[in-house]
Amino acid sequence: MTQPFSSLAEFQALLEQAGGPDGSAIEAAQDRDSHLTKPPGALGRLEDLAIWYAGWRGDAAPRIENPQVVVFAGNHGVAARGVSAFPAEVTAQMVLNFQHGGAAINQLCASVGASLDVIALDLDTPTADFSAGPAMSEAETVSALATGWKAVDPAADLFVAGEMGIGNTTSGAAICTALFGGSAADWVGRGTGVDDAGLTLKAQVVVEGLAANPQAKGNGLEALRCLGGRELAAMAGAIAAARFHKIPVIIDGFICTAAAACLETACKGALDHAVAGHQSREAGHVQVLQEIGKEPLLSLGLRLGEGSGAALAIGVLKAALDCHSGMATFAQAGVADGG
Amino acid sequence: MTQPFSSLAEFQALLEQAGGPDGSAIEAAQDRDSHLTKPPGALGRLEDLAIWYAGWRGDAAPRIENPQVVVFAGNHGVAARGVSAFPAEVTAQMVLNFQHGGAAINQLCASVGASLDVIALDLDTPTADFSAGPAMSEAETVSALATGWKAVDPAADLFVAGEMGIGNTTSGAAICTALFGGSAADWVGRGTGVDDAGLTLKAQVVVEGLAANPQAKGNGLEALRCLGGRELAAMAGAIAAARFHKIPVIIDGFICTAAAACLETACKGALDHAVAGHQSREAGHVQVLQEIGKEPLLSLGLRLGEGSGAALAIGVLKAALDCHSGMATFAQAGVADGG
Repeated sequence: MTQPFSSLAEFQALLEQAGGPDGSAIEAAQDRDSHLTKPPGALGRLEDLAIWYAGWRGDAAPRIENPQVVVFAGNHGVAARGVSAFPAEVTAQMVLNFQHGGAAINQLCASVGASLDVIALDLDTPTADFSAGPAMSEAETVSALATGWKAVDPAADLFVAGEMGIGNTTSGAAICTALFGGSAADWVGRGTGVDDAGLTLKAQVVVEGLAANPQAKGNGLEALRCLGGRELAAMAGAIAAARFHKIPVIIDGFICTAAAACLETACKGALDHAVAGHQSREAGHVQVLQEIGKEPLLSLGLRLGEGSGAALAIGVLKAALDCHSGMATFAQAGVADGG
Repeated sequence: MTQPFSSLAEFQALLEQAGGPDGSAIEAAQDRDSHLTKPPGALGRLEDLAIWYAGWRGDAAPRIENPQVVVFAGNHGVAARGVSAFPAEVTAQMVLNFQHGGAAINQLCASVGASLDVIALDLDTPTADFSAGPAMSEAETVSALATGWKAVDPAADLFVAGEMGIGNTTSGAAICTALFGGSAADWVGRGTGVDDAGLTLKAQVVVEGLAANPQAKGNGLEALRCLGGRELAAMAGAIAAARFHKIPVIIDGFICTAAAACLETACKGALDHAVAGHQSREAGHVQVLQEIGKEPLLSLGLRLGEGSGAALAIGVLKAALDCHSGMATFAQAGVADGG
């Protein structure tokens, strides 16, 4: 579908018009849950997930049959500052690896039964180095948001946005510093594996980025434009579009969460249709999850990006709905309940 | 297969003769892991799991294609003390529910692609009330261990033991108190949902059980016999048999872990072929996992039993092996590595 916005102000207005979950589906799902053959609450968070998902789908007993993962790739001018352990060429090389099926996200999507699309955004034209000024113009940002928006399959019933972009943990750290304060050193991490000197450099670059982009402070969409990158804007656009289509979202690691946090800062509640798939080992992730009020489903020490942690969590969400929608009630099974 | 033991002493001897993982498969798997198209360690615990699994299977790049879940059900004399929120008849009713496909474990097995067998052990003859003396004779214990041993499919490539047995969280708490010390109140939990008075009663019953069975203290197989039950002994027998067949195991919640801890106490290292699937919300589970040195894969607040948490974790382990054995190497993909 064509995106229904042509400026950041129009995108902001769309976020503010977004609908909520279906209250009657939530009530019906809660009622169903209370009659299933298990002690009350014994499936723990799986029960909460199933009811939450039912609300967003408007169906008291849904299943997840068509999850979609989209990996967005972008190149960052700030990579020229030497903030990554890998050269910038790796972004394009990894896009080929995704297309040929050789990356972790390919295996994870196959493992959980998700479709995978890969979208490279103008890799030959890196964004501007944000340590000297805005990474993107408004037009570039809107274009990337639109690419993300249009990437969401309206027929999907669960959505994950992943990313690839050498230098983008520095971008994520800059966004978090701008949105949530604290020192740059609190938000930078080792990314693909920089050493202590690399970590110090990343913090310095973030400090410079904040100084060069004062309009980003506390402003979700300006932080996305000035400190983000095309793949971060595309993830944000896709997450917003999923809400538009009543498709629940699983948020991935640090960079995806930073992009999502731009939406939540721009419009409180913009992530109500999303859960956090995992807690990454990237240093700032636990903090940004706290800032947006999301408790991760998994904590297995991943720090890969690509949507990998969220893709792994698709299996948990599918299982939650399989239990909720497939189990017998006490009456159906002829089992005495505990009441 | 017929079980190769006819006494607890012979079972103990079998535990002591068990083999270890294949060191050359571990080395080959580590080498493969280091060449995959991701930053070193970026898949976190998935990498450790894959290498561990490869070692036990003796294959540097295996997949999980035939996971087996077996739910063992037993009835407990101690249930007559009123330690459960549900009547004892529910054990048999839930066995029918498992057989008809209506329980959570049925849905979870379907969700992760595991086979499910259900084995009811002499439900019409509950074990003796352990608060007055041993729950089982040696012959009864050996018979239940043998039922578990024979339940493992030698062609399976991953094994999960689950349980159903009204009253068995009290049994699990008694075993943990006997093996690891502390007060009974440290180990009892709400099980299927007892109130505060029920919790106090469970602790009292455990205290009586320890007094009536002094030989259980610090003795794995005596704790299993005197304080356990048929489904706990069957789980222990099955976990031991899986080691015999080089089949890695995922341990489930509190009761399964208590049964497994009897093996570990009887023979240090007897659980080296096992990982902990999840951390249950049942009070004592976090402690018993620490005692046996296992870090849970998931922590989603489940406290259902049936093998549910371990079954959910099958998806994580399958995904770990899908990544390990399916990803391209840097050389295959033409991607520059970070070195």
